[in-house]
Amino acid sequence: MKGGAKDFTVPGFRAAGISCGVKKSGKKDLALITSDLPASVAAVYTTNKVKAAPVVYDMRRTRKGHSRGIVVNSGNANACTGPEGYQDAGAMAKAGEKALGLKSGQMLVSSTGVIGVPLPVDRITRAMDEVTSKLSPDGFSDAAEAIMTTDAFPKKARATFKVGRKAVTVLGIAKGAGMICPDMATMLAFFTTDAAVSPAVLRKVLREAVDKTFNSIIVDNDTSTNDMAVAFANGASGAGPLAPGRPGYRRFVDAFGEVAGKLARMIVSDGEGATRFVEVRVEGAASGTDAKRAARTISTSMLVKTALFGGDPNWGRIIAALGRAGIRLNPDKVEIALNGVNVVKDGVDTGAEARAAKAIDAPEVEVVVKLDLGRGTATVWTTDLSYEYVKINSQYRT
Amino acid sequence: MKGGAKDFTVPGFRAAGISCGVKKSGKKDLALITSDLPASVAAVYTTNKVKAAPVVYDMRRTRKGHSRGIVVNSGNANACTGPEGYQDAGAMAKAGEKALGLKSGQMLVSSTGVIGVPLPVDRITRAMDEVTSKLSPDGFSDAAEAIMTTDAFPKKARATFKVGRKAVTVLGIAKGAGMICPDMATMLAFFTTDAAVSPAVLRKVLREAVDKTFNSIIVDNDTSTNDMAVAFANGASGAGPLAPGRPGYRRFVDAFGEVAGKLARMIVSDGEGATRFVEVRVEGAASGTDAKRAARTISTSMLVKTALFGGDPNWGRIIAALGRAGIRLNPDKVEIALNGVNVVKDGVDTGAEARAAKAIDAPEVEVVVKLDLGRGTATVWTTDLSYEYVKINSQYRT
Repeated sequence: MKGGAKDFTVPGFRAAGISCGVKKSGKKDLALITSDLPASVAAVYTTNKVKAAPVVYDMRRTRKGHSRGIVVNSGNANACTGPEGYQDAGAMAKAGEKALGLKSGQMLVSSTGVIGVPLPVDRITRAMDEVTSKLSPDGFSDAAEAIMTTDAFPKKARATFKVGRKAVTVLGIAKGAGMICPDMATMLAFFTTDAAVSPAVLRKVLREAVDKTFNSIIVDNDTSTNDMAVAFANGASGAGPLAPGRPGYRRFVDAFGEVAGKLARMIVSDGEGATRFVEVRVEGAASGTDAKRAARTISTSMLVKTALFGGDPNWGRIIAALGRAGIRLNPDKVEIALNGVNVVKDGVDTGAEARAAKAIDAPEVEVVVKLDLGRGTATVWTTDLSYEYVKINSQYRT
Repeated sequence: MKGGAKDFTVPGFRAAGISCGVKKSGKKDLALITSDLPASVAAVYTTNKVKAAPVVYDMRRTRKGHSRGIVVNSGNANACTGPEGYQDAGAMAKAGEKALGLKSGQMLVSSTGVIGVPLPVDRITRAMDEVTSKLSPDGFSDAAEAIMTTDAFPKKARATFKVGRKAVTVLGIAKGAGMICPDMATMLAFFTTDAAVSPAVLRKVLREAVDKTFNSIIVDNDTSTNDMAVAFANGASGAGPLAPGRPGYRRFVDAFGEVAGKLARMIVSDGEGATRFVEVRVEGAASGTDAKRAARTISTSMLVKTALFGGDPNWGRIIAALGRAGIRLNPDKVEIALNGVNVVKDGVDTGAEARAAKAIDAPEVEVVVKLDLGRGTATVWTTDLSYEYVKINSQYRT
């Protein structure tokens, strides 16, 4: 199956995105995605102990493993909104079900935006007929726009593969920016595929893909109140059911991972005010946990991030971050490379800073730290920290 | 004893601060503090696993409990400088001892500045006679200037009290800024007192004072490679030895705490690019550890900090930080007040945001979070996050 970016569709699914007035700016803020057939559903939710109403609503509903789609609004997170928030989430789902002529419990909901402000749910329910009338196979681009908050650009990706002679598609849209800090803005990702997969297999594939991609940008519990990744699979491709060991399963996993990976990288690239994409890789840690902790401490260090913004190969800040990461560490064994230039060996300067400064004067910077203590490795994708980040986040609401 | 700020001295101690050429700017970068009498010494050092050479050097020397002073340079941290770094630290101490006519092992050393660059130790040793010739009882202001790096102003404080009819003085100078983030710049503090105290008692008093003050800005292991707080006590006041239970001991502890508290608050106020001083207080946590963790997660949240910079009472970011802090939490019980205005009660908005916005449009902001789960409390002093922070830290070396 050819077509690529122009043909941003997946058989058996339709989507739309419109403005319903939740955002004061008048920009698109209501998205609808639906499968024309009953679909398997799987989801991964935020681990934040404060969970927004739509997250709580969906957690219960996705357990059944089947769904017909999702209603998403941006501009308001419906989080910390008390009992009314749960009612509003239910009202959103019901309005979607009614407009689509579905039975109760078939639609999921999702919200992103400001926390703690009552959801103007009437604006959403009143607009449900309009957004339903706009549903179309190539409405995913509008939907991707309608879920944006501080995003600078909509995030979408698509991959196809074959099972026998049947073409199968995986399509994803996502929103998120500001991943440069643990308490990032909300991350939402919605995947649709015409593969035939059971809810259990879909859950497995989604989990693995998320672990390898979004979890490189959202470390540990650093999730917002509203984060979710949801996958729908409706079997419209006509290809046989995919499951471990069956033909095409590996290709499905790869395609899913490719879409998730592209979306995750786009989210990082759109890091609020980011000027550089940064990959931090820690190798040779005493354990996997140590590696993760080290990569995360470096990635969230404001001093490291501001140095990278300034194009300064200031490895002292990297080694200082390592020292306070709470990991096993032998400072005399540390090796650090910036875009391939070894700036530290055996814990001391190699005299290559001028070369390193040139090497990191680039849109992508790779920080590789070797600890020489064991086999633990971890990778985190992040960004630098610029004036723009402060600007965006200090003016978000005011 | 009157005199106050104008009379910035402590009997039996002399100090000086000059420029020796370590800083390219030509600003003061070499400080010398010395006691004319043998003095008790106590110190608290960084918990960072990567320790600068002067820290390692001093750790061994302060164990004996006696010292005659300290040589401090700014502009270069002498950290991650390999075996040469240790030699250079020793050379600095020796040069000080020689210039002062002291026996070997009597002087301590301290450095702050860029990490990983060999210390231009010759410039320091060559300037030792000059700085010694400038020693004077009121040289502490020059010394406070000479230990600055990105500090906007020198930090100094002094308190006096009486033991019987004898006046006793505690004087402190410090450097540090950029405490708004775990991996802050180096924090140095040097205390001198003419009280008579044993090394063991001095250690106890220093530890307690540091715990209540500097540890509110430097949480857990978040210390740089060079941090240290050193106290010298020479007994020149003529007052009897101070120890728990003895007359004047409580007043000594209070005076010491007052000086440490003032210095710590100055460091926060000088937080790189800080526009507001922020006190985060968590009450009613399930444990002290939970309280500390919560206060720290809020204090290091870039989203909270940028909101405060913008004067935005965005409590959603505070509650989201709580949710990912890894603490026991009942979101429906959370209460948040900003400068006395209750913005969240029972986990939901109180409708007081406009009032809160006015209340936090101030140089000092108090964030009080009540969790209603137990008796754990913690306080952290921090700052907002401004454009200026990014500017200072991206241009530190380049």
